Amino acid sequence: MHLRKITTLLLLVVTVATPQLLQAQPHPNLIMTKAGIEKVRKNLGKVPLFDATVQSVKQQVDAEIAFGIDTPIPKDFSGGYTHQRHKINFLTAQKAGALYQILQDDKYAKYIRDMLFQYEAMYQDLPVHPQERSYARGKLFWQCLNDSNWLVYMSQAYDAIYDTLSKQERDKLENNLFRPFADFISIDNPQFYNRVHNHSTWGNAAVGMIALVMNDEELLQRALYGIEDDGLEIGGKDNDGGFIKVAGQKAGFLANLEDPFSPDGYYTEGPYYQRYAMYPFLIFGLAMQNAKPEMQVFEHKDNVLLKGVDALLNLSDADGEFFPLNDGQKGMSYYTASLVTAVDIAYQYGAQNPQLLSIAEKQNEVLLDQSGLAVAIGIRDGKTQPFVKHSINLSDGPNGKQGGVGVLRYGNEDLTLVFKYAAQGLSHGHYDKLSFSLYEKGDEVLQDYGLARFVNIGQKGGGNYLKENKTWAKTTIAHNTISQNESMHFDGKYETASQHHSDLYFYDDSNSEVQVVSATETNAYPGTQMHRTMAVIKSAGFEKPFLLDIIKIDSATKNQYDLPFYYMGQVLSNNFAYDSPTSLHPLGKKNGYQHLYLEGKGKPSTGSTQFSWLGNGKYYTLTSATEKSDELLLTRLGANDPEFNLRRDAALMIRRKDSDNTTFASVIEPHGSYSPVSELSVNSNSNIAEVKVVLDETNYTAVVITDVNGDSSLFILSNVNASAKQQHQVKINGKLYSWTGPYHYTDSK
Amino acid sequence: MHLRKITTLLLLVVTVATPQLLQAQPHPNLIMTKAGIEKVRKNLGKVPLFDATVQSVKQQVDAEIAFGIDTPIPKDFSGGYTHQRHKINFLTAQKAGALYQILQDDKYAKYIRDMLFQYEAMYQDLPVHPQERSYARGKLFWQCLNDSNWLVYMSQAYDAIYDTLSKQERDKLENNLFRPFADFISIDNPQFYNRVHNHSTWGNAAVGMIALVMNDEELLQRALYGIEDDGLEIGGKDNDGGFIKVAGQKAGFLANLEDPFSPDGYYTEGPYYQRYAMYPFLIFGLAMQNAKPEMQVFEHKDNVLLKGVDALLNLSDADGEFFPLNDGQKGMSYYTASLVTAVDIAYQYGAQNPQLLSIAEKQNEVLLDQSGLAVAIGIRDGKTQPFVKHSINLSDGPNGKQGGVGVLRYGNEDLTLVFKYAAQGLSHGHYDKLSFSLYEKGDEVLQDYGLARFVNIGQKGGGNYLKENKTWAKTTIAHNTISQNESMHFDGKYETASQHHSDLYFYDDSNSEVQVVSATETNAYPGTQMHRTMAVIKSAGFEKPFLLDIIKIDSATKNQYDLPFYYMGQVLSNNFAYDSPTSLHPLGKKNGYQHLYLEGKGKPSTGSTQFSWLGNGKYYTLTSATEKSDELLLTRLGANDPEFNLRRDAALMIRRKDSDNTTFASVIEPHGSYSPVSELSVNSNSNIAEVKVVLDETNYTAVVITDVNGDSSLFILSNVNASAKQQHQVKINGKLYSWTGPYHYTDSK
Repeated sequence: MHLRKITTLLLLVVTVATPQLLQAQPHPNLIMTKAGIEKVRKNLGKVPLFDATVQSVKQQVDAEIAFGIDTPIPKDFSGGYTHQRHKINFLTAQKAGALYQILQDDKYAKYIRDMLFQYEAMYQDLPVHPQERSYARGKLFWQCLNDSNWLVYMSQAYDAIYDTLSKQERDKLENNLFRPFADFISIDNPQFYNRVHNHSTWGNAAVGMIALVMNDEELLQRALYGIEDDGLEIGGKDNDGGFIKVAGQKAGFLANLEDPFSPDGYYTEGPYYQRYAMYPFLIFGLAMQNAKPEMQVFEHKDNVLLKGVDALLNLSDADGEFFPLNDGQKGMSYYTASLVTAVDIAYQYGAQNPQLLSIAEKQNEVLLDQSGLAVAIGIRDGKTQPFVKHSINLSDGPNGKQGGVGVLRYGNEDLTLVFKYAAQGLSHGHYDKLSFSLYEKGDEVLQDYGLARFVNIGQKGGGNYLKENKTWAKTTIAHNTISQNESMHFDGKYETASQHHSDLYFYDDSNSEVQVVSATETNAYPGTQMHRTMAVIKSAGFEKPFLLDIIKIDSATKNQYDLPFYYMGQVLSNNFAYDSPTSLHPLGKKNGYQHLYLEGKGKPSTGSTQFSWLGNGKYYTLTSATEKSDELLLTRLGANDPEFNLRRDAALMIRRKDSDNTTFASVIEPHGSYSPVSELSVNSNSNIAEVKVVLDETNYTAVVITDVNGDSSLFILSNVNASAKQQHQVKINGKLYSWTGPYHYTDSK
Repeated sequence: MHLRKITTLLLLVVTVATPQLLQAQPHPNLIMTKAGIEKVRKNLGKVPLFDATVQSVKQQVDAEIAFGIDTPIPKDFSGGYTHQRHKINFLTAQKAGALYQILQDDKYAKYIRDMLFQYEAMYQDLPVHPQERSYARGKLFWQCLNDSNWLVYMSQAYDAIYDTLSKQERDKLENNLFRPFADFISIDNPQFYNRVHNHSTWGNAAVGMIALVMNDEELLQRALYGIEDDGLEIGGKDNDGGFIKVAGQKAGFLANLEDPFSPDGYYTEGPYYQRYAMYPFLIFGLAMQNAKPEMQVFEHKDNVLLKGVDALLNLSDADGEFFPLNDGQKGMSYYTASLVTAVDIAYQYGAQNPQLLSIAEKQNEVLLDQSGLAVAIGIRDGKTQPFVKHSINLSDGPNGKQGGVGVLRYGNEDLTLVFKYAAQGLSHGHYDKLSFSLYEKGDEVLQDYGLARFVNIGQKGGGNYLKENKTWAKTTIAHNTISQNESMHFDGKYETASQHHSDLYFYDDSNSEVQVVSATETNAYPGTQMHRTMAVIKSAGFEKPFLLDIIKIDSATKNQYDLPFYYMGQVLSNNFAYDSPTSLHPLGKKNGYQHLYLEGKGKPSTGSTQFSWLGNGKYYTLTSATEKSDELLLTRLGANDPEFNLRRDAALMIRRKDSDNTTFASVIEPHGSYSPVSELSVNSNSNIAEVKVVLDETNYTAVVITDVNGDSSLFILSNVNASAKQQHQVKINGKLYSWTGPYHYTDSK
């Protein structure tokens, strides 16, 4: 603390001593530009979607103006009134600024000016927020993060009315409100500001945005490069358990642009947080583009910002909802406001991809600036093309060498596999190496639980993370992957987990009928190597594509392996006997197991265990090559959940005990449909008679899928050489197979 | 059995001896008429929705023709291949007949002829269906019911191609297929045919339809009036537990038209079965209208058939899904094919209500006859008006004197109460006197469970009723009403329940801001009178309308009363403490209680117990006036359900022990909204501070609702005089209230 205070003082001295000035630019110069706004005004009334957005925004802002300005003394968490009020204030002020520039109606300028001076009057004497939960408490909000949101938006409002204010007014606002505000979230809170984390991205952008409006080079440097001597100790943690400072870590906007994004544009925290961080990334990127084009922020790291938009859009299901990898609240989608920004900016400053226009059409609104205008004009002029999502493999890590996420899609998102073999994903990461989820169109077939939080719903822990996020949502057993000895990957230790990542074995979507992604994990359970291969296959004898899932485990010791499948729907049938307890007891005591009730326990009755369910009017069957000694557990979430923070979701879990080297092979097969309106049940039975591991040795693993007509297909995997050029030969049941590349698939049909 | 065989023989003799003939009519004369089809042909290409339906039906039929005709030896239950195949056959043949008449393409006539002769070849030697579950096994299907479906549709196909067949061909079909078929489902199965039940309606219509095509007066008489001497014993039951023969009961189509419909068009089995029965009712009604207009079947019982269509449409939520009263599968809606028939016929033969056109527009298809043409022309000509559903009170019972169902709607279905105070509803009735369900738009707020069955899904008990339908779905505790001493209404005895019904106390929807329905039940628990009053109230101080629920119980003995609320959504908060067991145990041993787990047990901490949940992005709070000694139970369905036949739904249950006379008063209050896309949480807190019973005596019960601002409203109910003209005076807390009519509502706002 002592050191930090000194640093703060030093920095303040520097600020006062050398007020460096950027070359003065006319306002607005941030998101809107003089030239841009001219073009917007000229096109008013001529571009339907733009005009509609102006009208809709005008309605919202006019309603707020009628409501009156309220800047209450901060008091509440996310779900409470003061939080919501200040949030609505900055959102509305930003919109009012755009309206002022477009419509040139003084009432919008006055609204912003009045609001800013109310804030100016209260800010100087404002203590830190009374809620003490955050590692970096804000003043208007309970965390600096939300204060930074405020400044990112308010900078735009200020920029919009800058020219309407006298120098005296501007000095007052800048000296009493904006500069102290920027200093508070940065030099007063380096533990928040000087990280590589979405929090810091917001902080950096906030400081940078106001720097550009105020023409303050020192703040801009701080935004871009962070605080040089932040006085932080290595290894400190925030209240989400994330590291604050890592050795050798740079800080500032550019570092945040560098580190969490892979060269493919994948953001290591996952799409839910990428969606959140995209706004400050892009809006400050755009501000820099307008104010300092020579810095080429959009071109940074081979266009990673614009690639990020593309990656993000590809991490959504057929309904546009983001896959809830790591901490992600389900239902968040590309309909959210920050994605309007992302899509419009990516269109304007990228390659004017006409497929983006179809998403903008669905969003049914555009940014009120030149990029939104460009999008609306593109739509008006009939340039729209459907946004087609293909299979995609996104690397993780700053250099793309820390695993990744593979998304295999068949047809028009008829079947979508999301396979996660990434790095830990910072503090919002889950302990779910080699996990997956499966979608048919926009419906979850096998789910990823997402987070345990009701974002902004005050009644649920103030809208913040619930303790079940740690005790359940982050645990390994909460995911469709292997849990060894009822423990978590890396023992649930963030420090360890952050040092490792899974590795891609190979990815091949070149044959649309047989698409494969394969990866290995050797650190989650020391001494145990897991190698999971997932193939989306469309076989002629099958109505729909299916998923083949092979997990080969090699361990130095004998262990228990649990493999759950979190199916979405109602149980239809199965081919094994099980006991159903009259009373339900938790399956275990910790690592997430304490939240699972055991609703049934059985044994395989054949070598191919089958389990069917009906979800969203469609049938699904899991067929798994099981061993006689396997246990089949039917679990239900909800034990030790007195606050009802968890959903009562179900799983079928395959438990294999006392094994060192073993292989799980399963097929998840969508089939048929059911309509409660026509009451027609179509193709409700599985087409599979047997799934069998016919070869499993060091070099090769082979699985045969036999359908009910006796036709079969064979999938052979080279376990040790993933080269696309390697030639292989192996004899199975007396027959010789030869091929080139890491896998071989043959179908008797 | 002996008697029945003799009867059968006698009837056969009669049939052969006096082949009475109707006056010969040109074909088609059943659904399509010569004149009608002329009009249809003239309008081809001019009426978009009609043309589109022709195209879509043509695609379906052409695909079936390409597939080829298959009439497999019957073998399977509803979910299986042979069942589905024969079902698709008759559906397709009926459509092919319409196409033949409209398009005059011989391939459709040939398809039907070939199919009919395949059936003719197999039918004579066909034994009864091998599946033995039904009380009336069919030949093509496992129950006569489905055989009757076949004949209703095949009659139409036969009628369509009648004139293309030689007399020899017709004789062959009629003697070997149609007459034996009609005899089998009627005189060979009087226990199926001679009831008042939706089964018999299908049977009667089937026999009547083929009678009209074949011009067979004896069969027509049998269709209209049943079998005179059926040899059935009084009191026998079917496999659903329904009575087969009741003393003094008439039979035949007209009796089925008479008895199950109330004068308001409510069908006593409930909307799910009404939807199913409407097709034979209307299609045979239409055939009679065409062939024997002098019998005025549509005008029977003051137009009850057409009134029934209106009643049925009004028994749906904002999405068009029918309320699952009694046995009803959720999701069934007015998009189903039989409602296309119902809507088109009701339009054509009713008053050409232009609101029906909006439903036809949503259905996006019409009947391929003159009524479908009329609807499509109405739509083309812009006559469509929105179908607006208002509050409605539908009496039950042949004379409208056996209770009923009240539906209170506020606004544009913003809040919909469904209050059931009806008769038992035949064999598909539930033991749920004075139960209710609540909807906000198309979303369930407090649910009626519906049935325990997966209709036509073979894996689930052959698609038939599951035993949990009896052990859970029909039970009292499965419903939002009072269970006394953990027993069922009428002890769950169908015989007793069928003798009684609840009684309307009053219904008043004249004031849209305060709509009330009130009813009493005195027989469900002998010695106990229950009086439930439900009011949908829009108060100025509240964002949305709320539901006030008052249950006054008077009993000769002290009892335990359980009042569950089956909320739909996730628990948010509550104002009472409760214990959460680590292990879950069933709440009871029988009467449905054996299926409930106890997830929490608490006591009220104040006189107004509050419980909030979030469902479908909307907030709800229950506020109930509780007593200190009440128990608050959090239950979860799913105990003793080894086959996973039940959903894992939850309830809050208020348990009051050792009480004779007592009153439950609760408010269910919808408020606010939450969006996972904007993450905005709006108005998530209840507006209610207290719900209090301020007066509860023989003559009057009064409840005060106080909001968080201290404003209050008062609802006074006259418990003994429901007259709209009666004047009342009562003093409450020293203040005198005077009013006229059964209730008084006053709001301090």
